[in-house]
Amino acid sequence: MAILTLPGLIDPHVHLRDPGATHKEDFYSGTAAALAGGFTCVLDMPNNTPPITDAAALAAKQRAASEKAVCDYGIHFGASADNTEIAASLAPQVTGLKMYLDQTFGPLRLDSLQSLVSHMAQYPRDVPILCHAEGRTIPAAIFVAQLFDRPVHICHVSRQDEIELIRAAKDKGVRVTCEVAPHHLFLTEEDCEKIGAGKCQVRPMLGTRADVAALRANLNVIDCFATDHAPHTLFEKESAQPPGYPGLETALALYLELARENILTLDEVIARCYENPRQIFNVPVQNETWIEVDADAEWIARGANMFTRAQWTPFEGRALRGKVTRVVLRGETVFENGRAFAQPGSGKNIRPF
Amino acid sequence: MAILTLPGLIDPHVHLRDPGATHKEDFYSGTAAALAGGFTCVLDMPNNTPPITDAAALAAKQRAASEKAVCDYGIHFGASADNTEIAASLAPQVTGLKMYLDQTFGPLRLDSLQSLVSHMAQYPRDVPILCHAEGRTIPAAIFVAQLFDRPVHICHVSRQDEIELIRAAKDKGVRVTCEVAPHHLFLTEEDCEKIGAGKCQVRPMLGTRADVAALRANLNVIDCFATDHAPHTLFEKESAQPPGYPGLETALALYLELARENILTLDEVIARCYENPRQIFNVPVQNETWIEVDADAEWIARGANMFTRAQWTPFEGRALRGKVTRVVLRGETVFENGRAFAQPGSGKNIRPF
Repeated sequence: MAILTLPGLIDPHVHLRDPGATHKEDFYSGTAAALAGGFTCVLDMPNNTPPITDAAALAAKQRAASEKAVCDYGIHFGASADNTEIAASLAPQVTGLKMYLDQTFGPLRLDSLQSLVSHMAQYPRDVPILCHAEGRTIPAAIFVAQLFDRPVHICHVSRQDEIELIRAAKDKGVRVTCEVAPHHLFLTEEDCEKIGAGKCQVRPMLGTRADVAALRANLNVIDCFATDHAPHTLFEKESAQPPGYPGLETALALYLELARENILTLDEVIARCYENPRQIFNVPVQNETWIEVDADAEWIARGANMFTRAQWTPFEGRALRGKVTRVVLRGETVFENGRAFAQPGSGKNIRPF
Repeated sequence: MAILTLPGLIDPHVHLRDPGATHKEDFYSGTAAALAGGFTCVLDMPNNTPPITDAAALAAKQRAASEKAVCDYGIHFGASADNTEIAASLAPQVTGLKMYLDQTFGPLRLDSLQSLVSHMAQYPRDVPILCHAEGRTIPAAIFVAQLFDRPVHICHVSRQDEIELIRAAKDKGVRVTCEVAPHHLFLTEEDCEKIGAGKCQVRPMLGTRADVAALRANLNVIDCFATDHAPHTLFEKESAQPPGYPGLETALALYLELARENILTLDEVIARCYENPRQIFNVPVQNETWIEVDADAEWIARGANMFTRAQWTPFEGRALRGKVTRVVLRGETVFENGRAFAQPGSGKNIRPF
């Protein structure tokens, strides 16, 4: 049995739904799912209800997380059409500014050039801006960032033309980083029939085989893996069909599959789910923190057995290989053999205030 | 009476509707309107019916123009989702490649990042690419052009955030040029009530007072004036309400108003309707060609008195000052005191083939 000892992984893109939709997930269930998946730090997105676009909403999320989280976390702030100054002033308390520039779940969509420019111009240069940007919105976001001499991080790149554009930009020395979600590396639109039309909804939508092939062919320009863990209940997925997949508990096994397929080395996998997100999002080192992974353990993905309150997975029934057996956070065993031991609230905000 | 002798003006953006919709305009009526407006060269857009996106359609337009035009002209080719190679191969015969990246009149809309990239990558660097791009599409187009080391020309800039972005890009040394239409310098959305809802339709739509003020405050980054002369009949405008204004016969009087308001010098006006478009679109010098303008002549804009087949104007009833009294093209008087003398077909294609 090959036991790998790896650093605690970092997921720079999760939606823990707390506060506002804790029937989907909360900071306990979401961070327990993170531990089960090998993540000791997650960065949480701002499209809550209400969205995290002002000081009061940020404080409410900080409170909820401080009471419930069992792994460490950072909070991304949300850009709105009229919160440029507030966002900039709260930057020291957060891990990034998220701009929803294309269609997504929730009301945080920004359409205007003016909104894009004003945040890019005024947000502190040492805190990342993350963009949900698809298609032509990607070069738009990159150009405006470049105009204001700042880097930009493109979330969940999913299409061939997108990753090829980012490659061309990086080749030119443009300061852009990007992430890809596991479902965009392992599923195509053809899988929707099996997954089910409602459950299959996700933004960006699943791509074609050519898109998946292009992402895999360009892994060397992909800085981070990010689950975009976005839980909704099975009932919601099958009725209102909101976009989003849970992903924390299946991600590492899928990432390791890339190493088994010899597309990446194990070190290159770890760079994308530890070292690179650590550097891009300025995540402090977690002392005496590691995970142990049985790289050969075979298991079947079953949503009903997961920590996420979503209780389903787009990978339902898939045979996976590689399972987290133990997580040690700051010297304490917080997860072992399928059980989470940490006390709610033991997870720390990586931007203490 | 102050008679100005000026170079024959160049309008880099007209829609002469020929072939395909000659009840709106044809190469005779459109170029006669051009002469009446002081233009001795116009560059014609490709959103005809059918669009000018292949060799046969280009040949049909070349034929129609060669038979009817009374001023010189160039033809812009249309980018489609699947004509990248054809467009590049026909570049020597045209004055530019027009990419419709946002909503407009006709079927030439391109939405995908892939289309934007493929044309920008493959089109010859020495022939301009012109983009109908609004809002965030402007930085997208500029960035992709920059990636492929080519300049890009942004058509009919109309909004404050757009012109300020272009200013910032130019300040950084980015190779972008732009044009502004007279209606965006002289009309606001508030004028629609007077113009009428259907007639008022135009793309980009008229802006706010703040937009007009911003365009006027940034005239030093505006390279060209361009009428976007886009005739539709009065009946069409009041029924189906297609977007577009005729503009050739009112433009110069409006441009001169900017000089009378001391916003620009006369030389700066002429730079924007002669020298800059000449350089950007590589228009050959027209020998023994000039226009004479009675700068003090006062007149009232009346669509019914115009050469354009549209027979209406959004400036209907407006008191204007400055009228073309004579146009000499290659040594021949082709227009004088309201009458066009040139033989149909005497206008020349500036890209002979």
